[in-house]
Amino acid sequence: MNQPWWRDACQPFDTAAMEQARVRQRQLTKPAGSLGQLEDLAVHLAGLQGRERPTLERVAITVFAGDHGVVEEGISAYPQAVTGQMLRNFVGGGAAISVLARQLEARLEVVDLGTIEPDLELPGVHHLRLGSGTANFARRPAMTEVQLGAALQAGRDSVRRASEQGVQLFIGGEMGIGNTTAAAALASVLLGCPARALSGPGTGLDSAGVRHKADVIERALASHGLRADDPLQALACVGGFEIAALAGAYLACAQQGVAVLVDGFICSVAALVAARLNPQSRPWLLFAHQGAEPGHQAVLEALEAQPLLALGLRLGEGSGAALAVPLLRLACALHGQMATFAEAAVADRPA
Amino acid sequence: MNQPWWRDACQPFDTAAMEQARVRQRQLTKPAGSLGQLEDLAVHLAGLQGRERPTLERVAITVFAGDHGVVEEGISAYPQAVTGQMLRNFVGGGAAISVLARQLEARLEVVDLGTIEPDLELPGVHHLRLGSGTANFARRPAMTEVQLGAALQAGRDSVRRASEQGVQLFIGGEMGIGNTTAAAALASVLLGCPARALSGPGTGLDSAGVRHKADVIERALASHGLRADDPLQALACVGGFEIAALAGAYLACAQQGVAVLVDGFICSVAALVAARLNPQSRPWLLFAHQGAEPGHQAVLEALEAQPLLALGLRLGEGSGAALAVPLLRLACALHGQMATFAEAAVADRPA
Repeated sequence: MNQPWWRDACQPFDTAAMEQARVRQRQLTKPAGSLGQLEDLAVHLAGLQGRERPTLERVAITVFAGDHGVVEEGISAYPQAVTGQMLRNFVGGGAAISVLARQLEARLEVVDLGTIEPDLELPGVHHLRLGSGTANFARRPAMTEVQLGAALQAGRDSVRRASEQGVQLFIGGEMGIGNTTAAAALASVLLGCPARALSGPGTGLDSAGVRHKADVIERALASHGLRADDPLQALACVGGFEIAALAGAYLACAQQGVAVLVDGFICSVAALVAARLNPQSRPWLLFAHQGAEPGHQAVLEALEAQPLLALGLRLGEGSGAALAVPLLRLACALHGQMATFAEAAVADRPA
Repeated sequence: MNQPWWRDACQPFDTAAMEQARVRQRQLTKPAGSLGQLEDLAVHLAGLQGRERPTLERVAITVFAGDHGVVEEGISAYPQAVTGQMLRNFVGGGAAISVLARQLEARLEVVDLGTIEPDLELPGVHHLRLGSGTANFARRPAMTEVQLGAALQAGRDSVRRASEQGVQLFIGGEMGIGNTTAAAALASVLLGCPARALSGPGTGLDSAGVRHKADVIERALASHGLRADDPLQALACVGGFEIAALAGAYLACAQQGVAVLVDGFICSVAALVAARLNPQSRPWLLFAHQGAEPGHQAVLEALEAQPLLALGLRLGEGSGAALAVPLLRLACALHGQMATFAEAAVADRPA
């Protein structure tokens, strides 16, 4: 029997290029370490791109959207209709991620994995129609095995399209009313941590709403009997179409040698799934920001991730990752363009 | 007797434009507050620019450089000659701030207030030659009253040149071997806090070096008899030419209605001096990052500042502020270009 595609080998890290970049960093006209995280970032990207001086001109953003049956448990401040409405806004250019993609000159793709509007047909959107949203995981598994496989593959397909255009950085975004509930449920299983500690207001629940959300998750997890060492089963039972697509995209990026910039809570949970399904994918994942959702911190710690930003964001769509792109680009520019002590005839210490 | 120029009124905040911006933020297609600090930033800039939708196309960066007599006490890891060498690197395009200015399409000006090389003559640098660096403040006041006045005016002159080109955001940077010692001394006086708590490694002291630096400051402060309510006297006695110029620049920006993005520890101390000399200047000061130097946190708290980044930077030159410029620009783009709920036909909650 063949192993599933996501277990295939990921691209190796180029340690020679990384060492060259490290040597170069020490020669640049600044005190050693004075550019903080940006120095590590440039060195890391050198290892991923296999060149002493990495660049990040071509950035691709894919927003994966899907609806969540668990919304019928009353765990979201917004109605499910918003998912479809926002798809229109993404391609119409008025959503936050649309504005950011324009400013960054990034390619923006929108993939509808399945919303409550099965007839939705929007120019510029890839409609995959895996179902009218997931099933309510408080009552039954969110996805069938076939749906799960199709969602993972949808992420991989998006990365293939981006790769064909020579993308150097991939950002996955998500849209799906109810998806912080699915993400908290998944994180609860994979981290072995109570849902109460991982559940937050999402797009705007009050404290009673957050307690209810945690209760819904706890009851569902008790009924599904999930285990931390079976991430695929957890993804099928309490995940979401867009979360599975994100995990598939991250795994495909690592296999194709494309650096990933991971967005907020939901994307970080997808990254955790990817890292559990294939640990070789981990070095390909960079983390953009520490979001406002309480579960995010726990997931980042489990991944030993050091995000670049902490601006109190909780929008999703890939917006936090997009906001961090200029920092990555500037880290590359500094690394590639600064003069060395020898070139600038500046004294390296000591006196 | 005329009051000194820096006490003159600052431009008022446009509360009507700010309120318009606040209303607009609530109408944009995202959950309220989901863009975190970027929302406050856009609203704040609206108040400063007096328009509902602010923009930040024209950014000016001025690096102020000066040497510090206190270096003869052995408080820096680098020799003073580096200050002059780095001036050459700034205009040569190889320094971090030169690379960042290019990437941001920002105007970069370099002002030499006085280094140990009095004959230094570099094309593209404003040489003001206020002295061969400051005097060693461990033995005597760092500056004369005339030097102090000239340094403050140098900052103001730089802002005037930037203003003539319609600049919308001013960044001051600094270069001066020994200037974290002067900044820690100033902060110690103005915050009434022991130098030991505010002294750090600067460009690379070890822990014994940091203790020695704090001792030098403590002894100097004991001999000068400075008071928190006389910031001008403190600036003259233990400050630096470039710190005074930064304070002068910040005050002039507030008077001319130009938003300021404050860089790291040294710039934040200059901002504290500016806010003490003329409290009306405070709203014009935005804070870019929380640096690695331990005194920075204390100064930011005193100013009730919420910096945007925390990347472990400790370079100076204005580099941390430059790195935050894309975030400000993206905050403006999101605020100005996102669709409203009505425009995009997206349901604002509740369901």
